[in-house]
Amino acid sequence: MRLGTIEAGGMKIICGIGDENGQIGKKAIIPTLHPRDTIPEILNFFASNHIEALGIGTFGPVEIDPASPQYGMITSTPKDGWRNFDLLGALKAQIDVPMVLDTDVNAAVLAEARWGAAKGLDNSVYITVGTGIGAGILAQGRLVHGLLHPEVGHMLIRRHPDDSFIGNCPYHHDCAEGIAAGPAIAKRWGKPGIELTHEEAVWDLEAFYLAQVIANLLLVLSTQKVILGGGVMGQKTLFPKIRHEVTRLLNGYIDKKAITENMHDLIVAPGLGSDAGLKGGLALIVNQRAGK
Amino acid sequence: MRLGTIEAGGMKIICGIGDENGQIGKKAIIPTLHPRDTIPEILNFFASNHIEALGIGTFGPVEIDPASPQYGMITSTPKDGWRNFDLLGALKAQIDVPMVLDTDVNAAVLAEARWGAAKGLDNSVYITVGTGIGAGILAQGRLVHGLLHPEVGHMLIRRHPDDSFIGNCPYHHDCAEGIAAGPAIAKRWGKPGIELTHEEAVWDLEAFYLAQVIANLLLVLSTQKVILGGGVMGQKTLFPKIRHEVTRLLNGYIDKKAITENMHDLIVAPGLGSDAGLKGGLALIVNQRAGK
Repeated sequence: MRLGTIEAGGMKIICGIGDENGQIGKKAIIPTLHPRDTIPEILNFFASNHIEALGIGTFGPVEIDPASPQYGMITSTPKDGWRNFDLLGALKAQIDVPMVLDTDVNAAVLAEARWGAAKGLDNSVYITVGTGIGAGILAQGRLVHGLLHPEVGHMLIRRHPDDSFIGNCPYHHDCAEGIAAGPAIAKRWGKPGIELTHEEAVWDLEAFYLAQVIANLLLVLSTQKVILGGGVMGQKTLFPKIRHEVTRLLNGYIDKKAITENMHDLIVAPGLGSDAGLKGGLALIVNQRAGK
Repeated sequence: MRLGTIEAGGMKIICGIGDENGQIGKKAIIPTLHPRDTIPEILNFFASNHIEALGIGTFGPVEIDPASPQYGMITSTPKDGWRNFDLLGALKAQIDVPMVLDTDVNAAVLAEARWGAAKGLDNSVYITVGTGIGAGILAQGRLVHGLLHPEVGHMLIRRHPDDSFIGNCPYHHDCAEGIAAGPAIAKRWGKPGIELTHEEAVWDLEAFYLAQVIANLLLVLSTQKVILGGGVMGQKTLFPKIRHEVTRLLNGYIDKKAITENMHDLIVAPGLGSDAGLKGGLALIVNQRAGK
């Protein structure tokens, strides 16, 4: 089958054509500007590439309950033109195929569970650490939606005693996103993470914070795989630091080999690399057809 | 149908006879002593009360994966005689009916979702605050198991700056359970909570800690109902304090009326009162028969 997929991010929107096995053929990258400029470009791409269904993983917050009249509407973003913008509606008005929409991270965790690092597992989490922090959660084989959708990035964690950065979340100041997402790193240290790759202290502190988020997720969800993606995780030295810190925090409490001995296999990079999000749109379609 | 149910707690084990509608007829309370004394009493109860199936909600940590050879075995408890005790095996050796076993809190959340405060909801949490802190989680209509089972009580939360109590969790010192369960209250203030009912500061601090656990659960699970039970929650003034504090912590971020306006309906006492756990055993049987 020819399936369409969209990975809608705050900086760019990636459109792709793929199939039910997670293979991507063609793709296009469109900058995320005002919807009046961006939506026509998306429509153009799909007008010239026939598809039978479309799966969309998007930044949020977004209404993902298919039973809601606001299904597919971006809600409280500060992004120009996108607040209360009916993304799904704008696509449906011009493209006449079945569509399914979820958060970018929910789409990514689904793709990783089907074709990537969490293949065959019923309980896994995909965390992105970039301009924000977000997580998609698969529990007992199903995406967690609940009232809205997980907002793991705003988890309240403990400050490092030597960290005087006040935090930059407009809602919570020093929640995880407010002290550990890319913009927080840049503000605290005076330059972006990409220029700090050799500064050990930067990544020790980053691991200190991210490990708390992961430890709490493990305690709440008892999850079988934690996949870390997003721009900040491009700093590969973070992985061993985070594993070490999670082990220290849990201190042997969850007595399963996966945690006490195989942490390197529990906390991993995306198996699908930078395609996890785009393949997520395909996974959403496959998942819906399987009635999940 | 005549169904058997067991709510196995650290202090007492309640056995009951009920039906698939959550009605309890007869019940018996047996103190939790060494298994060699306690198990025969449980067997006696069911020997004199014919049942067709048995559902068990138990304290833990316990292996709850039916595919594991250790299914139904209590694991790392310090309780005399119960470490690595094969609870399910001991019952199966003498009672020849189908059995299903899960944690006490998973059983309770299932009963609340079927007959109680979370009736009809697919996403809910049951938190008990007593000698420990534990939570059962229903996500997308299924109990969350994962690697082991949720261990929400050990979530890492922020200390109150005025609280000098070091915490008494042997693994993490000042995780939620280490600073907010019943024994922590008693150690910090020098007497048990039941003798402190009029001390406002005790319950302000308790709400400060429990609200963090709940806020983080709401952010991770986007859950539709948070049910609070257990001995400590007998202090009813905790409910409004916790609701107030959760609202303050989230600060309007999750923009759903259930959170911004209807907190009194989101964070509630068990609809089934003190029977939530015992009815949980019945709910486990009904749930298994429904193929969930």
